Amino acid sequence: MKPLGVALLGCGVVGSGVVRLLLEHADRLQRRAGRPLELRHVIVRDTEKERLVKVPEHIQGTDFQTVLEDPKVDVVVELIGCLEPARSHILNCFAHRKHVVTANKAVLATHGDELFSAAHEAGCILAFEASVAGGIPLVQALSQGLAANQVTAIKAILNGTTNFILTAMSDRQLSYDDALLEAQRLGYAEADPTLDVSGMDSAQKLAVLARLCFGVSIQGDAIERRGIQNIEQVDIQYARVMGYVIKLIAEAWMSDHRVALHVEPTLVNRFDPLAQMPGPYNAIEVVGDIVKDTLLCGPGAGQMPTASAVVSDLIDLALGHAAITFNSMKLWSPDRGIGLLSPSEIQSRFYLRVNAEEQPGSLAQVTGILGKERISVASIVQHEQLSTQRGLAVPIVISTHTTNLGSIRKALEAINELSCCMAPSIYLPIAE
Amino acid sequence: MKPLGVALLGCGVVGSGVVRLLLEHADRLQRRAGRPLELRHVIVRDTEKERLVKVPEHIQGTDFQTVLEDPKVDVVVELIGCLEPARSHILNCFAHRKHVVTANKAVLATHGDELFSAAHEAGCILAFEASVAGGIPLVQALSQGLAANQVTAIKAILNGTTNFILTAMSDRQLSYDDALLEAQRLGYAEADPTLDVSGMDSAQKLAVLARLCFGVSIQGDAIERRGIQNIEQVDIQYARVMGYVIKLIAEAWMSDHRVALHVEPTLVNRFDPLAQMPGPYNAIEVVGDIVKDTLLCGPGAGQMPTASAVVSDLIDLALGHAAITFNSMKLWSPDRGIGLLSPSEIQSRFYLRVNAEEQPGSLAQVTGILGKERISVASIVQHEQLSTQRGLAVPIVISTHTTNLGSIRKALEAINELSCCMAPSIYLPIAE
Repeated sequence: MKPLGVALLGCGVVGSGVVRLLLEHADRLQRRAGRPLELRHVIVRDTEKERLVKVPEHIQGTDFQTVLEDPKVDVVVELIGCLEPARSHILNCFAHRKHVVTANKAVLATHGDELFSAAHEAGCILAFEASVAGGIPLVQALSQGLAANQVTAIKAILNGTTNFILTAMSDRQLSYDDALLEAQRLGYAEADPTLDVSGMDSAQKLAVLARLCFGVSIQGDAIERRGIQNIEQVDIQYARVMGYVIKLIAEAWMSDHRVALHVEPTLVNRFDPLAQMPGPYNAIEVVGDIVKDTLLCGPGAGQMPTASAVVSDLIDLALGHAAITFNSMKLWSPDRGIGLLSPSEIQSRFYLRVNAEEQPGSLAQVTGILGKERISVASIVQHEQLSTQRGLAVPIVISTHTTNLGSIRKALEAINELSCCMAPSIYLPIAE
Repeated sequence: MKPLGVALLGCGVVGSGVVRLLLEHADRLQRRAGRPLELRHVIVRDTEKERLVKVPEHIQGTDFQTVLEDPKVDVVVELIGCLEPARSHILNCFAHRKHVVTANKAVLATHGDELFSAAHEAGCILAFEASVAGGIPLVQALSQGLAANQVTAIKAILNGTTNFILTAMSDRQLSYDDALLEAQRLGYAEADPTLDVSGMDSAQKLAVLARLCFGVSIQGDAIERRGIQNIEQVDIQYARVMGYVIKLIAEAWMSDHRVALHVEPTLVNRFDPLAQMPGPYNAIEVVGDIVKDTLLCGPGAGQMPTASAVVSDLIDLALGHAAITFNSMKLWSPDRGIGLLSPSEIQSRFYLRVNAEEQPGSLAQVTGILGKERISVASIVQHEQLSTQRGLAVPIVISTHTTNLGSIRKALEAINELSCCMAPSIYLPIAE
């Protein structure tokens, strides 16, 4: 049977994994795909650079044009990442009637409307299982396995780097800086870790999921987001005493045909499976209106897990699944009448840490402001100050009942202006 | 577009859920399936019986023949369970060129070869997402999402009833009998709970997974299996002290082109997500050779979760996915050259409880027998006996390093014959 002609654009960590899979497991993949998956080109910037895999010389090149002009290439696997030239190359593929498989959440979260439309107009397929949650077959579960459901909520750990750092901070009391250094040394974090630790990577993945589950077109950087750079041991320890673990959670929840999206360090109940997800793992709780809660976990990044997702898209393409899914999901015109909630409307319980000087009336002032904003206190703790700590800020740690982010922000603004307040207050959502 | 004509065979708990979904969410399902899912018949034994859902009278009936003779029926959803008449009805559907969606693991585990072959020969599809793990899209993940992988191991909680009972025994120190009564009162266990508590239900599901993942054709009752009826508080407590939780685990692991399959109460490390799976949930750890470990969890049974799985199969049928999957999986001739390991070859660490009279030399005799079978002891505990307990058996609790089931059985046979041994010894595998 006619092979599926594959070209790779980029051959870094994931690309090397895809090459290995295609070459070392060709027989198995042919059996699964019903026809050979033929790797015809691997396009890189520098063919001299040392790679994690030996790419046969005759398929290596630097000129993307050769891919576009090869009639035997059916699908291009885009693994260069970032926005440009990834976006232009993908559009170019569609212009030349080539399907695209991508692991690039950034380009999907930023140019999703344009890319899905271009694919549709060209009669091509844009598949993206590898763009969210690495080796976990999440995109497929959402588009096929749970197709009877309207997803009503997602609560997820979508970034392995930050989960590794938070786990190290929580389990071994490392400081943020030390945990980050360790993550970099072990290869879990980039030299410039901003994209991960700022929550942007998670937000981009959440944007992809929002399109898939809610028909919402939103850019990653338009999603309410805070990173983990300011998480301190003191908050991890207070959370632990209260029975929680701090995780970077990407959350979506729908209420009355509107959906709230945000990425924030969040207190997760320690019995919640998400709280127990170690190191670089990803975990996604999906609530569907019919099935209720399901949970998918696994390696969220890394060479072979991500390659597994890329190749599952290739097999789906070869078999015909991908065309059916792409045409039935209609991601180029995603609107299903679901609007967006503004961040201030986000409802949650919250953890607050106010850094007050111990003086008569300070507690009354703080709780008075919360009361005025109609924020109901679920628990409050202020420990005695040692005599050696006189003059330092005393943490007043509060958990609230459900309220909205707007009220919390207004209250903290007022609290931070109190004369007893010695440092900005901290707020973190508490997941239900 | 031409509707997909659906007939229901059986309208109990799950059937009522499917009827509700098809009738109450018709618009959504049509959008997802690209055409209407038209419920044309609901066949029951007694139309007078009160049901959990109002079935429109004109589609209710008792004569299966009307379904077979209705040319507008494309697919029959078989929800009567057990072996007969389910098997005959399914074969009859294929003879009349109707596809079948089933939630019936028993019939698949017993007559799988015959049913998949009959479907194939008739050019029909047999879909079975709902037969294993209820609302969790497991079958799909294994047949599509993880298609780049050879599955090398499965470790799973596949039965909600026994998980509910074991959770109650572990968290609230209930006896087995009390926990079973509670499960029955809450509707998690049948009046006759044998199928669940004996591990047979799990074994049948494991047989279905073995066909899917390893191409192995095995009947449910040929799988090495022990139930939870003999689990005692004493073992739950010893396990807890050692850092483990006892769960009924269905396990498959492949080694050197042969696969071991067994269902047994098993000590699971308390940090393993499986250990923390509460109440009636299911959880499946799947290890693929490329992706490594992934975990899927969710409601493993129940009306709407199972209905969600049934309807996802119907949507896949309407869209064309199901035909592609069925034809590419070739489950009618599953052989992929993978053989079966005999139970005695099953490798594992083990928990042993020997019930010995405290007398000089008894410990030496027990450890001597283990040594002779080349079983290496990882830990051993024998607590002091109170003077009021003189003459009673003292538990000697041992964890072993990895050995095989054959050696364990041989050793325990010899130990049970010792004069110091006052009651049969217990063995339970310890999951890695």
